[in-house]
Amino acid sequence: MTETAQHGPLTGLRVLEIGHFVAAPFCTRILGDLGAEIIKIEPPQGDPVRQWGEQIDGNSLWWSVHGRNKRSVTLNLKSAKAVEIVLGLVEKCDVLVENFRPGQLARMGLGDDALRAVKPDLVIAHISGFGQDGPYRDRAAFGVIGEAIGGLRYLTDHAPGTSDLPPVRVGVSIGDSLAGLYAAFGIVSAVWQRDRVKGDGKGRTMDVALTDSVLSMMEGMLPEYGALGKVRQPTGSRIPTAAPSSAYPSSDGRWILIAANSEPLFAKLASLIRRPDLLEEPKFKGNRARVENVVELDAIITTWTSQLTIVELENRLTTADIPSTQVYSAAECATDPQFIHRGMVREVDDELLGRVLHTGIVPHISDNPGTIRWAGPSVGQHTNEILGEFLSLKPDDLASLRAEGTI
Amino acid sequence: MTETAQHGPLTGLRVLEIGHFVAAPFCTRILGDLGAEIIKIEPPQGDPVRQWGEQIDGNSLWWSVHGRNKRSVTLNLKSAKAVEIVLGLVEKCDVLVENFRPGQLARMGLGDDALRAVKPDLVIAHISGFGQDGPYRDRAAFGVIGEAIGGLRYLTDHAPGTSDLPPVRVGVSIGDSLAGLYAAFGIVSAVWQRDRVKGDGKGRTMDVALTDSVLSMMEGMLPEYGALGKVRQPTGSRIPTAAPSSAYPSSDGRWILIAANSEPLFAKLASLIRRPDLLEEPKFKGNRARVENVVELDAIITTWTSQLTIVELENRLTTADIPSTQVYSAAECATDPQFIHRGMVREVDDELLGRVLHTGIVPHISDNPGTIRWAGPSVGQHTNEILGEFLSLKPDDLASLRAEGTI
Repeated sequence: MTETAQHGPLTGLRVLEIGHFVAAPFCTRILGDLGAEIIKIEPPQGDPVRQWGEQIDGNSLWWSVHGRNKRSVTLNLKSAKAVEIVLGLVEKCDVLVENFRPGQLARMGLGDDALRAVKPDLVIAHISGFGQDGPYRDRAAFGVIGEAIGGLRYLTDHAPGTSDLPPVRVGVSIGDSLAGLYAAFGIVSAVWQRDRVKGDGKGRTMDVALTDSVLSMMEGMLPEYGALGKVRQPTGSRIPTAAPSSAYPSSDGRWILIAANSEPLFAKLASLIRRPDLLEEPKFKGNRARVENVVELDAIITTWTSQLTIVELENRLTTADIPSTQVYSAAECATDPQFIHRGMVREVDDELLGRVLHTGIVPHISDNPGTIRWAGPSVGQHTNEILGEFLSLKPDDLASLRAEGTI
Repeated sequence: MTETAQHGPLTGLRVLEIGHFVAAPFCTRILGDLGAEIIKIEPPQGDPVRQWGEQIDGNSLWWSVHGRNKRSVTLNLKSAKAVEIVLGLVEKCDVLVENFRPGQLARMGLGDDALRAVKPDLVIAHISGFGQDGPYRDRAAFGVIGEAIGGLRYLTDHAPGTSDLPPVRVGVSIGDSLAGLYAAFGIVSAVWQRDRVKGDGKGRTMDVALTDSVLSMMEGMLPEYGALGKVRQPTGSRIPTAAPSSAYPSSDGRWILIAANSEPLFAKLASLIRRPDLLEEPKFKGNRARVENVVELDAIITTWTSQLTIVELENRLTTADIPSTQVYSAAECATDPQFIHRGMVREVDDELLGRVLHTGIVPHISDNPGTIRWAGPSVGQHTNEILGEFLSLKPDDLASLRAEGTI
């Protein structure tokens, strides 16, 4: 009666991706990680992200993760036959995810109406920089610009007056990934209402903007501005409302994060750095006073940290039971015992690259975990398989589609 | 036959939150935004986040957003009667979300077995800093430390050798919010498989770690390290693989982001800044050459930007159709015409605070949008209502529970 959810809770959900770069492919990566079946349409030259970052023999390492658990079908969407093929696939899918510029899919003959004509209860997710409507709808969707408009770039900076350098980019394409995560959340919400026993059986259309996704993370920024005119300011390595909590230099050129911003933790830290006198100082008594005098306090802590290596600092802080860590680079992430224990760092067989180090699956679902079934495929690796399986195309049909440049 | 999904696709899903701070309450905020019914258990002193950030008459502005669409029930979980009440509520809920330290709920008598004894198909989401198992399971879950361990802090910095200042914190509690988003995605995935017509009817347990959530965003970092030993490095305001794309100073002390890293866009920029000669220079020909000589190139662009105000820069760049924006602070976010058009910045009535500026709902689901039904409630505002409605407690029962400090 019930299907077995062999590869995680999304086993049985079929998703068609017409995406490229980061946002839509990240969305389908996390859907696939929890068991969804992903069919990715790619142009003959492949998703541009295959050219990004480090390569081995022309094969991208990032792609091994970004494309995992997906089947790749090559289609030249400028051809009318390819559009027919897409509609044939849509008929057999639950969900379509795309991140072209708003309106572009419709101009190809794949607008919402055309899609729903073949699959009335399709769930459709449009992902874009600024959304499917409004005055900015047609602006180019560069991630760094969306992150700046969402308010994140302004706050990712040293405190005003501290540095002449510009605010930094968050080290990854965070706006695109957030939009992908929100799209995945919305898609699964829509199929729940559609498919559940008391559900309404209806398809839904979602419109996920990178800018909106970033803005929705901004905590109290908007209400505080609206009510008090307060413009939230960056605080560099510190937390605005608690001290001491920052990154401090070691003697060997690394950074140690220390979060000792409660009374018991601050007492432990004062003792560890042999400055019990700090506890008697009115200017460091209580969190509010420490926040007010944080520059002086952090200078005292830096005097201590800068005399010790990162290894010594970690040992002493851990022994004293004070929350702390070195700032992990790729090297520390890859060898961290907790990540390895939890399967968050694991080797995966990749047909093109051999054994590749992959990030694991989030969330961990202990009684029904997702799986990494295969690494990112080559361009069009599954074209014949999918078009045979879904549309009953024969080798001869495929050969002529290939000859005319449709697949 | 079918229920109407009046408040979005999650109408009909009932979620119990035993959470505090950011991760679990953010998870339930976005579930509630799409229509889920949220019951939040709070200690008599309230969620600590009610004390964070700016207040008006002791009421938190952030809470107005963070607590919206939730009903608040006060319970002192140290009392055995309160634990019984929680189990009574669990029996009538689909999902439980919590973010205590691992094991703490079990020690209170609310372990997974006890929960499943009253509601066998309950979906349970445990959110924590490092996860429910492994060598770091019992470490304190400070967000800044989890972000550093996930690899994000290292990359959110100026390029090596550029600055003596430490890598900056992303301006919001990004690790907690990511964990909340992943939990929401996992929860809805689990209820889909449980509730769908061909589903398995089973509850599932998920274990969402802040560290894992951050690591899963790190793109090609792990595979590139594993295969090539390459430790990805921060690039400050720039993008590692494309130029020019950075933040440049205006004459009035602001920053303008310019992303002119394709051949046509670079040609437009060279023309706008009256340096057509750059197009003939071998060191700026093609993206690869521009990335290699980015310091020199950015200095040339800075010479131009630093002579113009932010308003002039935005006008000229927009007229030339070059992707660009000023770096938005709260003030620009709150008044942006696109955000206002899309309802991403909107006023909401708050019983305690009057009209409050809220972030809108993501994703936009055009044919079934979510709603903001009310702003964050006061502590225990719905205790009587919920305990009456779900457990049929009478005014006398409530009075004695209140007298003995259980509610």
